[in-house]
Formats: sequence, C-alpha cells, structure tokens
Amino acid sequence: MQFRITILGCSSAIPTKDRYPTAQLVDYSDRYFLVDCAEGTQMQLRRYRISFQRIQHILISHMHSDHFLGLPGLLSSMDLLGRKIPMHLYAPSEVISFIRHYKEMTHTPSNFELIFHEIKNQFEGILWENEQFIIRCFPLRHSVACHAFIFEERARPLRMKKNAIIQYGLTIEQIRLAKEGHDIIKADGKVIPNHSITTLPMHPRKYVYMTDTAFLPNVAERILEADVLYHEATFGQDFKIRAEQTQHSTALEAGKMAALARVKKLIIGHFSVRYTNTDSLLAEAKSEFTDTEVAFDGKVIDIPFAYRTFSSNHC
Amino acid sequence: MQFRITILGCSSAIPTKDRYPTAQLVDYSDRYFLVDCAEGTQMQLRRYRISFQRIQHILISHMHSDHFLGLPGLLSSMDLLGRKIPMHLYAPSEVISFIRHYKEMTHTPSNFELIFHEIKNQFEGILWENEQFIIRCFPLRHSVACHAFIFEERARPLRMKKNAIIQYGLTIEQIRLAKEGHDIIKADGKVIPNHSITTLPMHPRKYVYMTDTAFLPNVAERILEADVLYHEATFGQDFKIRAEQTQHSTALEAGKMAALARVKKLIIGHFSVRYTNTDSLLAEAKSEFTDTEVAFDGKVIDIPFAYRTFSSNHC
Repeated sequence: MQFRITILGCSSAIPTKDRYPTAQLVDYSDRYFLVDCAEGTQMQLRRYRISFQRIQHILISHMHSDHFLGLPGLLSSMDLLGRKIPMHLYAPSEVISFIRHYKEMTHTPSNFELIFHEIKNQFEGILWENEQFIIRCFPLRHSVACHAFIFEERARPLRMKKNAIIQYGLTIEQIRLAKEGHDIIKADGKVIPNHSITTLPMHPRKYVYMTDTAFLPNVAERILEADVLYHEATFGQDFKIRAEQTQHSTALEAGKMAALARVKKLIIGHFSVRYTNTDSLLAEAKSEFTDTEVAFDGKVIDIPFAYRTFSSNHC
Repeated sequence: MQFRITILGCSSAIPTKDRYPTAQLVDYSDRYFLVDCAEGTQMQLRRYRISFQRIQHILISHMHSDHFLGLPGLLSSMDLLGRKIPMHLYAPSEVISFIRHYKEMTHTPSNFELIFHEIKNQFEGILWENEQFIIRCFPLRHSVACHAFIFEERARPLRMKKNAIIQYGLTIEQIRLAKEGHDIIKADGKVIPNHSITTLPMHPRKYVYMTDTAFLPNVAERILEADVLYHEATFGQDFKIRAEQTQHSTALEAGKMAALARVKKLIIGHFSVRYTNTDSLLAEAKSEFTDTEVAFDGKVIDIPFAYRTFSSNHC
C-alpha cells in the first residue's frame, strides 16, 4: 500500500526557472489524486514519468491562477491521448465555470466524462472515500475561498495473532467479533481476552495539504499527528507584513503549525519568487519544528507503514 | 538591427518532456513580438532568459489550445511583477473571449492595459507597422480559422555613396531625390546618373510563420524569397492521411512550400508527439528543400543583413 506524494510544483504565483507553480500528485495504492494543477502540470507529470491517464480525481484548493491554469491543457491532452474513463474535478465554482467556458469555446467534445464537484465556500467534510481511504476538506483563511485537504487511511480492524485461530478453534463469527475488539466466549464458558488473540493494526497514515493560508493555529486539532503536513511558507519573517497583507504564512508560522499539530514531518513550499535560495526559510521553520524539509519540484515523499505497539487501553 | 527568432516550443498539441507546445519570440531590434503562447510559455521565456516584460505585442495564430493556453499565466505574472506598459493582443475572437472571461472570473484588476485586436476569419492585411518594420497576416487552411504572420523590414531608401555629396556638391533636396532613385540635374545642366552616387540599400529581411495548415501551394507568391520560413511539419509521409484529415502538413510538403516560395531557409516544427526523433522528418523536407533545419526548444535563428549588389535595372 504505497502512500506517496510527488511535488510537481512548489512556487507561489510566479514560476521560476527551477520551480513551477503549485501541483502535487498523491498516490495511494496506485490510485492517483492530483492536488492543484498550475500551468505546466502536464509537463511536470511527463518530466517525472507519471502516467497522467491514471489520475481519476483532481482537487483544486482555490481559484487563484497559480493553482488551476494547467487544467485545460491537461484535460485536452488526456482527451487527445484517447482517455475514456471519467475524471472527477473538485473545485470552487469559478474554476468549474472557467473549464466549462473553455470547453464551450473550443468546441471540443470530450471522449471522457468530466464530473464536476463544487467545493462551496467554507465547506468542511468528505470529498471522496472508499473502504480504505478518505479525503476530507476544511476551509483555510485566504483572500478567496480556499480549502485544505486531508488524505487519510481509514482505521483498520484488529489483526488476528498468528496461530490464534487454530489454537482456540475460532469460528468465522468469532474471528469477526475478535477483529472488532470483543473478547470471545467459548462454548464451555471460557473467556478468551481479545488482546491474547489480536494485535493492533497498522497506524492509519495521514497527509495534510495546507496552501494558501494565513497562519491558522485553531485548525491544529483537525490535523493532529498527521504523518506529513505540507504547509505553505510563501515568505520568511523578513516579509511578515507582506504575508499578513496577502493572507499567506511565513516559514516560522508553518513550523509553529507543525509543532501545534504534533505532526511527524513538515514540508514547506509555495515559495515566493524572492527566495531563489530557501535555506533561510528552512532554518526559520526548523527553529519551531525540527523535522522540516523543503519542497522542490520532483521531490518524492513516501509515508511508510508504522506498526503500533499495544497501548495501555488495549492491554 | 537584430532580427532574431527564438523557438520557445515546437511540439504540436501534446507536449513531450523535451518539446513544449507552440510559442516563439521574434525580436526585431529589441522590439519583442510573442508569436503564439502555449501553456508553459512563461516558463520557457524564463528558461531562455528572455525578459518578458519587454514583449508589447502578442499574436495568436488560432484558437487551438496548444497555441494560447499560456496567455492567462503570462499576463498574470507580468501584472504581479509590476508591469505598467500596455500589451497588445492580436487574436481570434474566441481567444479574446477566453481572456476576458478569465479576467472577470479572477477579479484581477490589471496594472497595465490589455488592448485587444481581433483577427477576423480570413483576414489578410497589416497587423502592426512602424517606419522600419511591418507585420502582415494571411489566412491558412486549418480546422478552425488560422493565420500566418509575415514579419518584414520595410524597403530602405538608396544609400549615398561615400564622398558623393562632397564630390558633386549636392544639396539636401538633391540628396533626398537621389535616395528616391532620381538622377540629379546640376545647375549647369549636367546630369549625374543616380547609380553613380548611390548604392542599393540592404535587402529587407523577411520571416514567415506558417502553422497550423494544410499544404497550401497557392500562397507561395505571398511569401516569396523570405529569408526564413517556419512551416509546420506535424507529420511525415507515413501519416499523410492523418495530416489530410486534421489539415496539417507533412515534412515533405513543408519542403515543397519552401522550394515553391524560393525562401532562403526553412525551419520545420510543430511535431506530433509520435516523433521523438525528428531525423526522418528532416530527411523528408530536405528531399525537397536542402536548406532545412529542425526546430527545437531554445533554438535561436538570427537573420543577418544581406547587402545587395546592383541589379541590371539599377545599373
């Protein structure tokens, strides 16, 4: 079950020769989710050898041009390359209107269905889910309606200990009950405590994407203990006033957010064109949160499985 | 008087990892004209270190997405970087509508004026001119309204021969007449033949941009003896039927066009994603026209001055 994020672009509004504007690919077990889609995203997908026909869901955080202008070109290339499977686009109404207008203007009947899911202003809730995985959304604070995305594995059932089934002669129903955490009462009345036949499942992994936003300490609760937090750090403290004016965060604030939410790793990105070298931004974020890394185009972040040990409430 | 073309993208509809879709910069004596503006054009301008704030005119050949999708991002970046000088956009009505819709949608009041010049279907005439340079337009044959652009120096006046003014004691009025090609009649009735006091000016240089189009031999007259012809060669003869269906040209036809128009140099481009290697396309074009080169992203074509010798009708 691979859980991988590939940074396709980590510049803020203006691209540089080394940094494209914002886009990322989230790959959960070969299911591809594109997160924002700035100009040049299709080129970056090719550059990093990611088959873009496998993307079935595109999520757009907000309607600023450095987050969605790659959509028409990407959708057009998908069509020209013979795509048949539907594409789901989760986006603010303005972006949906932009794509509709583009498609009407170019008179290009698609070979595949494009299914729009409007993300309404201040929406908080589920965008997509299946039995293993869930994508949630919550509002950020920016100059236009903007949302964060949480990509999270569902909690898995308890796992049966090796040999427990044979050792205790458990039935299918008893196995089901054991996986739900129940003790098992045998026919002779003997009770098998749950913890003696099960182990804890793997920790459900969580990735949080937060850009563009002013510093929002009150959302720490929502993203608590995420494995990875991608947080914008458009500016350093040297441009703190500009960050406030434009409702962006500084690298220091990104570090504070990671610390408040007790995440495992912080990735900072969405850098202003001012910062050709991001060392100062990294140092700032690290002063608040040690396990910080800097995003760069092509960076791959794998979130590994983490086995849990029994906690006191399970023993 | 530099006359330079920089290829920013020479792929057809679908970009590859090495080729961006269509855009070019024409630099005539430090006056920058952007010709088509596909997705990623602003990145390519940065990559090739071309100051995009110096562009004052953008010409869009047609409304297919691989020729204009870079416009909103480029205009947005120009604005964010503090542009104040106006931008002239010459484009079909659909592209103008697309940009208008984008600007309304994003509520971004520009700091600079964007002046639209609609290129109507089948328009043939002048798009822009000044005392030295003129840009003409004529229709091509494609699945939508599409135009070629001719960038041409104006014919210069005859040049006075070194020492002629002093030798014959010419007045300002006589110099003007001589530059216009008249013989000079001195006060004593003596006639000074024009060719003895003037030399021919430098050859007016001409660049022709023809993409996307079916093979159009009947336009050869219009582009006769151009210094450089950029002609699309989306396909090779191996996809001749596909070329006809989509109203594109093969490399062989591009070569034929160059030969018919007796141009000095042919550059082929707008290659289908099928051709990762363009050797076969080059060979095809060369079989019809020897002085052919293949476009590649970043290729620079300088058109040098060419001094003319006296022709019989001047001697």
